[in-house]
Amino acid sequence: MNNFTFSSPTKIVFGRGVETGVGEETALHSKRVLLHFGGGSAERSGLLPRVRDSLRKAGVEWVELGGVRPNPRISLVREGVSLCRENGLDFILAVGGGSAIDSAKAIALGVGYPGDPWDFYDYTAKPEQALGVGVVLTIPAAGSESSTSSVLSDDETQTKRGCSSELLRPRFAFMNPELTFTLPAYQTAAGAADIMAHIMERYFTNARNVALTDRLCEAALRTVIDNLPRVLAAPDDYDARAEIMWAGSIAHNDLLGTGREGDWASHGIEHELSALYDVAHGAGLAVVFPAWMKFAWKHDVSRFARFATEVWGVERDWLDPERVALEGIRRLEAFFSASGLPVRLTELGIPLDRLDEMAARAVMKGNGFLGKFVELDAQEVRIILQYALAPR
Amino acid sequence: MNNFTFSSPTKIVFGRGVETGVGEETALHSKRVLLHFGGGSAERSGLLPRVRDSLRKAGVEWVELGGVRPNPRISLVREGVSLCRENGLDFILAVGGGSAIDSAKAIALGVGYPGDPWDFYDYTAKPEQALGVGVVLTIPAAGSESSTSSVLSDDETQTKRGCSSELLRPRFAFMNPELTFTLPAYQTAAGAADIMAHIMERYFTNARNVALTDRLCEAALRTVIDNLPRVLAAPDDYDARAEIMWAGSIAHNDLLGTGREGDWASHGIEHELSALYDVAHGAGLAVVFPAWMKFAWKHDVSRFARFATEVWGVERDWLDPERVALEGIRRLEAFFSASGLPVRLTELGIPLDRLDEMAARAVMKGNGFLGKFVELDAQEVRIILQYALAPR
Repeated sequence: MNNFTFSSPTKIVFGRGVETGVGEETALHSKRVLLHFGGGSAERSGLLPRVRDSLRKAGVEWVELGGVRPNPRISLVREGVSLCRENGLDFILAVGGGSAIDSAKAIALGVGYPGDPWDFYDYTAKPEQALGVGVVLTIPAAGSESSTSSVLSDDETQTKRGCSSELLRPRFAFMNPELTFTLPAYQTAAGAADIMAHIMERYFTNARNVALTDRLCEAALRTVIDNLPRVLAAPDDYDARAEIMWAGSIAHNDLLGTGREGDWASHGIEHELSALYDVAHGAGLAVVFPAWMKFAWKHDVSRFARFATEVWGVERDWLDPERVALEGIRRLEAFFSASGLPVRLTELGIPLDRLDEMAARAVMKGNGFLGKFVELDAQEVRIILQYALAPR
Repeated sequence: MNNFTFSSPTKIVFGRGVETGVGEETALHSKRVLLHFGGGSAERSGLLPRVRDSLRKAGVEWVELGGVRPNPRISLVREGVSLCRENGLDFILAVGGGSAIDSAKAIALGVGYPGDPWDFYDYTAKPEQALGVGVVLTIPAAGSESSTSSVLSDDETQTKRGCSSELLRPRFAFMNPELTFTLPAYQTAAGAADIMAHIMERYFTNARNVALTDRLCEAALRTVIDNLPRVLAAPDDYDARAEIMWAGSIAHNDLLGTGREGDWASHGIEHELSALYDVAHGAGLAVVFPAWMKFAWKHDVSRFARFATEVWGVERDWLDPERVALEGIRRLEAFFSASGLPVRLTELGIPLDRLDEMAARAVMKGNGFLGKFVELDAQEVRIILQYALAPR
């Protein structure tokens, strides 16, 4: 087990109807906030009106900035930074999914920083201060509501990059599973794939003797696997939605990474896909992760065999762990596919002419390498992309 | 799933040698602290000298108060409160196990409170402020290093009571598994029983659809069950000690209670045992919990059957869930016994002439009732104590 530090200070307020308390909670942090959100669905569903009402009752003043898109853009972040400065706002309340939250985090970093906020994503600046961020979550997926990370895209350079800092943990997150009833099936499934990917990136580690964390990972994965079919069959199944929503936070607040180093190559590869083609992050992961596994499993057959038996219930055949390991990968891919997600690049609907370029870009940040469980060079990333093209 | 709020703000610093950083971390909170600890073992082991050295290097001044005993006393707390006031100390650094930490929490409550700190344990006062508490943990058991609770005893009235508040979460906890190598086998096993009890009190709930939390509970329980025999066989097995130590925090920071109401009757009964006879809390729990289960299992056979199959690996016999449920209880008792713990009141070495009195006292705080999974009256508590006397 590796040495580690861990804390999870975000105050989670979870359950039916909780969002009506967001004004009161916000008022504990600030009386002048930026209300940041995406498109019209939160308006139409009545959520934004409820949030405004709650802020008003708590005596909180706000300025609004909507229009966050999936794979959120640095351009809107710059706009948010200006709005905060001009209006003396010192707290960001994000209403939405990972995109709204990640965008809010970037604004929070940018307001007190004299340079351009992209610097934090380009690794030319390190976070030293940030405004506080609060969340009303509507999409269980990114785990950004209690994580240290934020991922942004730059339209002009078609680049997607992440920034991570303890300063970026939201102060609070209001999580009402009812708000997820209206999520379309595809977005629900892509969110679940994102949650599973956050756990699997941590699960596939070279650290030994991390049994508690392994078991916690397996517990969270099995919960998503058990509940995704339920919510796809009955979108208003409160309890199943609640299990997925809570698992989505646990998956990425780093409890499941304690004592170990994760891999994160699949995320790195997917970021190149969605930077160029603006695909849903979770759908991209559903394609990349099984392909990565088909490359990586021989590096540690025992770990993949454990994944197969403990997560997927594959029969424990100690005489043939390689077969067990491969069966686990097959079941993951079949699960994604049965959930309506793509598992091949072609199913994701992207052209195939820039695979070499994506492979080269994926390893750029790491000086030619990507991933910790298995260290990949550009050629190996290209092989993984090839696996993601193979006939089914 | 019930609505809930959750956060776990305690900064955990975990691993080999971490305690040398405690001065620097303490200095972030205060430059004048009370150093609070138990007996001579932390002195002899060199831990206290290392902590003093670390404080000195970080420019932190301190006043010392040792002498915390197992089942810590309100009398020493009063002394600590006076010391803090007289010396202008505004932070408590506890070095030790649950007793030192619980005592430190009580002092933290008492310093700014004009009345007697026992008021918080007698339910006549509610915590509204507290000094900060930091921890260097030496005994994995109570989970107090990241919990909201503190349990104290009053010698004069032979009363043992708990107080719980978010204000009591330690600011940080330094956890080095190496510090637990020298724990005697009995104390190691009693600590593990305490950890398991914290999980089981939350596991046995009437809340339905709490599958993620169930699985996290099972993961933590299996980790303790798997690693206790290892550390009893090899006290310096770092990784096994680390698993138990980390499980001990997870067990009681309330992650495993999210979305549900726990029971806590076994703790209530045990507190009466150790109030009168000063037995080790974990050893008392090893006696009480199986006895409680023998009374409680019929209330929800399916839950006890799940406990048996998912925690103890009992064969899933769907035709006879009652037999499965009982086999789980039998295995728990056998596990405690094989770990060198008492499982009968007689083995705990206490006289039997005050069982009626203990049963009556156990339900006193709850206006005649104790426990949430099954609500017990005094007569039922007395039956449980009788089960704890049955021939093996």
